[in-house]
Amino acid sequence: MYKGFINLNYKPSANDLVCSFIIEPNNISMEEAANAVAGESSVGTWTNVVTMSDRIKKMGAVVFSIEGNNVKIAYPHELFEPGNMPQILSSIAGNIFGMKIVKSLRLEDVRWSSSLIKSFRGPMFGIKGIREVTKVEKRPLCGTIVKPKLGLSDKDHAKVAYQAWVGDIDIVKDDENLSSQSFNKFEKRIVETLKMRNKAEREEGERKMYMPNITAPFNEMMRRAEFLVENNADYAMVDILTVGWSALQELREANEDLKLILHAHRAGHAALTRNPKHGISMLVLADIARLIGVDQLHIGTVVGKMEGGKEEVIRIGEEIESKIVEQKGNKLSENWKSIKPVMAVCSGGLHPGMVPSLVKNLGNDIVIQAGGGIHGHRNGTTAGAKALRQAVEATMQGVDLREFAEKHKELKTALDQWGYI
Amino acid sequence: MYKGFINLNYKPSANDLVCSFIIEPNNISMEEAANAVAGESSVGTWTNVVTMSDRIKKMGAVVFSIEGNNVKIAYPHELFEPGNMPQILSSIAGNIFGMKIVKSLRLEDVRWSSSLIKSFRGPMFGIKGIREVTKVEKRPLCGTIVKPKLGLSDKDHAKVAYQAWVGDIDIVKDDENLSSQSFNKFEKRIVETLKMRNKAEREEGERKMYMPNITAPFNEMMRRAEFLVENNADYAMVDILTVGWSALQELREANEDLKLILHAHRAGHAALTRNPKHGISMLVLADIARLIGVDQLHIGTVVGKMEGGKEEVIRIGEEIESKIVEQKGNKLSENWKSIKPVMAVCSGGLHPGMVPSLVKNLGNDIVIQAGGGIHGHRNGTTAGAKALRQAVEATMQGVDLREFAEKHKELKTALDQWGYI
Repeated sequence: MYKGFINLNYKPSANDLVCSFIIEPNNISMEEAANAVAGESSVGTWTNVVTMSDRIKKMGAVVFSIEGNNVKIAYPHELFEPGNMPQILSSIAGNIFGMKIVKSLRLEDVRWSSSLIKSFRGPMFGIKGIREVTKVEKRPLCGTIVKPKLGLSDKDHAKVAYQAWVGDIDIVKDDENLSSQSFNKFEKRIVETLKMRNKAEREEGERKMYMPNITAPFNEMMRRAEFLVENNADYAMVDILTVGWSALQELREANEDLKLILHAHRAGHAALTRNPKHGISMLVLADIARLIGVDQLHIGTVVGKMEGGKEEVIRIGEEIESKIVEQKGNKLSENWKSIKPVMAVCSGGLHPGMVPSLVKNLGNDIVIQAGGGIHGHRNGTTAGAKALRQAVEATMQGVDLREFAEKHKELKTALDQWGYI
Repeated sequence: MYKGFINLNYKPSANDLVCSFIIEPNNISMEEAANAVAGESSVGTWTNVVTMSDRIKKMGAVVFSIEGNNVKIAYPHELFEPGNMPQILSSIAGNIFGMKIVKSLRLEDVRWSSSLIKSFRGPMFGIKGIREVTKVEKRPLCGTIVKPKLGLSDKDHAKVAYQAWVGDIDIVKDDENLSSQSFNKFEKRIVETLKMRNKAEREEGERKMYMPNITAPFNEMMRRAEFLVENNADYAMVDILTVGWSALQELREANEDLKLILHAHRAGHAALTRNPKHGISMLVLADIARLIGVDQLHIGTVVGKMEGGKEEVIRIGEEIESKIVEQKGNKLSENWKSIKPVMAVCSGGLHPGMVPSLVKNLGNDIVIQAGGGIHGHRNGTTAGAKALRQAVEATMQGVDLREFAEKHKELKTALDQWGYI
């Protein structure tokens, strides 16, 4: 077999795409495993072929670093079709996960080729654009998910959303598995909920946002996005992993006209991301979402019901919100150039007592979404919503939650009910 | 927390969707973990919410079987939007993989609700349709992938394809990471390669097929599919996992007019499927592909360069090719009704010496694709192609390959070169 995919003296150029892998070889040496991974993900196969040429060998990927199980591979950008994310992933995150010569393989990070970065749109709004639309200048945005996840009628859904908005919540979103079911049809829900949004805006005197879930087969998803525009919604929400990259890219393309803030839910990501030795890291999925151009992305909470270690979540936050990201361990550097930053969304088992930790870990440029942590409040949705906003206000003022709660009864109840970490 | 998602006396109805999970609880009992998985994937969340009602509780999923780590959960079909695969997966294969209350979670099989099955198109051609188009009546189809994976120009690509066709190969396909790169643009490649296909058909007097890879952002993918129709191609190939379900469903919808045989490559599947305790099984991905309606699907080889145990690959073969599938262990039954069977594709490290094993394991209704196992033949692509077809002819005649090779020198060379298993 052709062994030429290793060159430890190679220095990647800015136009190379670089992948950081964690490889567990299967009864062969690390060098052989790394060589085979580089081959299969670029121009090689399992045996020498007569159709190979010297010119093509030069297009091969190069293993330029092996440290323990951490392997770094550089890919000439000619291997990829600019702006075609599925094609890029079929190379660097394709067959290699199933090769017998590895026991396990994880794509830990990608440093995108500078020529490829230019071929993607990135977010239309980004953090700055979101703050302009929502008119929330500095603090985290307060959000909730209508609960129960499924089962409410369109009118009841709108009512729960209203109760949250008048409790000083900025954003209400659909749950990830609500689209258009018999008990709650998309169009009716949008009309009813936006009616309630308008009412809440008039009463509260501040901007109120609704993030409707448009997850569907592509044409239906586009029809729903257009329906949102016609009905003056500001946002659209998509389950990016179950929808997939081909449709997401096209939605972003269409968004040049639609001009909706795109909220990305990551339902299903942990099937890929959770095993530390196999699959694709959330960091890579976050990179892809930023490149394609969602404006908001769920990245984890550190403190809630979902897995995701502190260091990992903070790194993902940096990756999607910074212009320059530094190399650290097997995490690669990135220069995002003109690609706008994505606002991080924290969601999953959150309640008001977690707000100071969230802000300490991730800063102000986040959406804090509590579902059960609002609708589960002993005094109901509006009180729960107020408690979350109070926790955010206290944190922005640098006041301890317990102290702030002395004069804010909704927060006091929430802390009594769920604690304060 | 609401504990009502368990009822071990429950008998699922035909309209329920049933999931078979493997759950590893994280410091709680199996009952608690199963209850939480059923809740999170249907109507529950981590805490009681005031907006819950008795009517909605009745829509919850039901854990009806717990045997060791195997858990079966029934979902009322009202939870799902008919025909919306991303929505269905955001429920049954969404947040649950990331919950802290499980160490790991695997979706092992799905028995689709009979009402939901009707809402998907399934394959347009299926096995019978493919045999009609290709005019190959009984034997496995012989296929190859143009190699090297990447780097050949459009003209060289067409030349390699021609060499394989005149070596008695039926089908030539693009590699999974070839789409439209600077060294080989899609349109030129299609025109050149189909020209060579026509030449090979005239010379050989049998049907020759080309499967061009149209993997791309949705609109571009559709443009390429239409280009194929205009140029009299019979097939289109898609990397279904990197493209994603939303775009794949819409491609299938459009295929009512395009009428292309859809070949599904599964690049990247093993990031989800390989860990036996976590993620989503290939069986489930195969189910989804059949429901949506691809005509051919890569399912593994048992014997090649890719992982996938014998029992697993055979079960996947049954699942996509049979009308009725029986329940076995934690694999669920299925009645596919009017959804046509999908032809299984074996690809990845194959060579002629593996053909008898493949046919023994998987039957005649398969495409046998060898890439390196053809272009790596000592006497070149045409000889390699002949060797594969000879191995198929020998197997159909029930003649041992060594015996057949006595009068077929290409096969003899292949067996000498790579062996015979």
